Amino acid sequence: MPELRKDPITSRWVIIATERGKRPSDFSARSEHRKVEFCPFCPGNEDKTPPEVLAYRSDGRLNAPGWRLRVVPNKFPALRIEGDLNRQGEGVYDKMNGIGAHEVIIETPEHKETLATLPVEAVEDVLWSYRDRILDLKKDQRFRYILIFKNHGAQAGATLEHSHSQLIATPIVPKRVQEEVNGAQEYYQYKERCVFCDIVRQELHQRIRLIAENESFIAIAPFAARFPFETWVLPKGHDPFFEDAHKQEYMDLARILKGTLMRIDVVLTAPPYNFIIHNSPLREIEGRHYHWHLEIMPKLTQVAGFEWGSGFYINPAPPEEAAQYLREAAV
Amino acid sequence: MPELRKDPITSRWVIIATERGKRPSDFSARSEHRKVEFCPFCPGNEDKTPPEVLAYRSDGRLNAPGWRLRVVPNKFPALRIEGDLNRQGEGVYDKMNGIGAHEVIIETPEHKETLATLPVEAVEDVLWSYRDRILDLKKDQRFRYILIFKNHGAQAGATLEHSHSQLIATPIVPKRVQEEVNGAQEYYQYKERCVFCDIVRQELHQRIRLIAENESFIAIAPFAARFPFETWVLPKGHDPFFEDAHKQEYMDLARILKGTLMRIDVVLTAPPYNFIIHNSPLREIEGRHYHWHLEIMPKLTQVAGFEWGSGFYINPAPPEEAAQYLREAAV
Repeated sequence: MPELRKDPITSRWVIIATERGKRPSDFSARSEHRKVEFCPFCPGNEDKTPPEVLAYRSDGRLNAPGWRLRVVPNKFPALRIEGDLNRQGEGVYDKMNGIGAHEVIIETPEHKETLATLPVEAVEDVLWSYRDRILDLKKDQRFRYILIFKNHGAQAGATLEHSHSQLIATPIVPKRVQEEVNGAQEYYQYKERCVFCDIVRQELHQRIRLIAENESFIAIAPFAARFPFETWVLPKGHDPFFEDAHKQEYMDLARILKGTLMRIDVVLTAPPYNFIIHNSPLREIEGRHYHWHLEIMPKLTQVAGFEWGSGFYINPAPPEEAAQYLREAAV
Repeated sequence: MPELRKDPITSRWVIIATERGKRPSDFSARSEHRKVEFCPFCPGNEDKTPPEVLAYRSDGRLNAPGWRLRVVPNKFPALRIEGDLNRQGEGVYDKMNGIGAHEVIIETPEHKETLATLPVEAVEDVLWSYRDRILDLKKDQRFRYILIFKNHGAQAGATLEHSHSQLIATPIVPKRVQEEVNGAQEYYQYKERCVFCDIVRQELHQRIRLIAENESFIAIAPFAARFPFETWVLPKGHDPFFEDAHKQEYMDLARILKGTLMRIDVVLTAPPYNFIIHNSPLREIEGRHYHWHLEIMPKLTQVAGFEWGSGFYINPAPPEEAAQYLREAAV
């Protein structure tokens, strides 16, 4: 059973994968994908993953080829679905069992496609699958947050090349999420407006950091971008929860997400990247001033001592210039 | 002039290097040191760095060979020493001029040496130089924090191979530092004890995460380590400020730091790493419950979407096992 451990100074939680028991030699500085002939995410290899919890397909089969999209539990989960939290102290320290869900969304049967190259309908399917899984896992009262994210490319932490995203449901609200929720709440108390709605308004007015826009969303280079070419996709309308969006919004999100990833591929020559859906905590009333959105971070620089020590970032690419490159990309 | 920009949601500050104006092609995914024949940090090349602000040498010369250690302003500083903060709003956003100091500590004239291979007296010199620079920069009333850190190896963010550390003085207290100071203060209010002193006591009693110990310091794998083989060096005695340590303590720190880096080199085959001195903010009264220390983070894994999105970390190496490997290393 993995352990959730809390840092007694900062209250930061860490998942300690006690079972994996890696040896020092397992940490040779790899920066390439594992060179595998075999891909467990390709059709025909369904028996090489845990049984699917969701699949989109036109036949009625299970764990067999014919799917357009497939969600399976992670074969090497960071957290385990079975058991109790069993909160315990150990002197000055606090810990609990690593309870949670860890799932993989296999976005396409095609090994070489990406969210930038797939048809927009397939990207929309990916978004629907995120929603389906959130709705399902929300019922489990042990979970307080569901994080959906994508690691694309080995340098961004992906261990398999076949296009996939991941979902982790946690029994605590992660610190960074809570910080954002608190920040949005403080702003609301001070101004009686949502800080994200204010950002959307200002960016649509100034337009210097605007990358793309459609009926429901904007894509911008954020004013205080941590990383070169960091890009946020924000709904124009206020909603705390990703899973409460309307059908038209998922269609619009699929379009702007695919388009933005295409722009990033063109301008930065298909870089590794991470994206993260920033969503409200489950069932938390203070979440109503939050405004869900998606953050994309191309992996172009190394995070180093200064960033680790201070939590503030040195970004050598001004967001206004990055936005211009992305806005003018030929897509 | 670089700009300090504040994220309106989380109040996280970012340094935007407006002058560097990098183009997208400057961000090709490099993971090696720039292949340079020429090293500006080697003796004889003193005119290729800005003039030194400190040097340890037995002759009385300046900016010429003969030094044991040399501190120079960074040639490409993230922050500028001249000017006023000029705090301004821009709609919902806040910014100020990027005022600060950014210096490089060239730790040795020998291009191939590291803190693990240098004589312990040379490591002690490095610590004295940190103190000298802190004492000097502390006089500048614009600065509220001085961060000292080291990036070792290209994958840990070093752009030059020649062994060096860096110092950045900032006009704001960085968020992560403030979180730690606040955490220590809350613990003190609750328990009337220092959380770091409690950690030292518990680790010396349990010994399962202890890596090394001398009269003044312990090296441990922290209970909630974020990264495989993360190692903290903690003073046994309570002191908020690194720069207030006694001579014997710098001698003891030099020994345990060199020894710990040697252990890391042996067990992990000389990996890239970052270390950071966690020190109290300058002139801040709430800092008295803080307890300065040093955190070493070997760079063995990629930080990915989950960590960026949640701020909590998945560590595949239990600290107790990592501590055992490092404790038993043949050094």
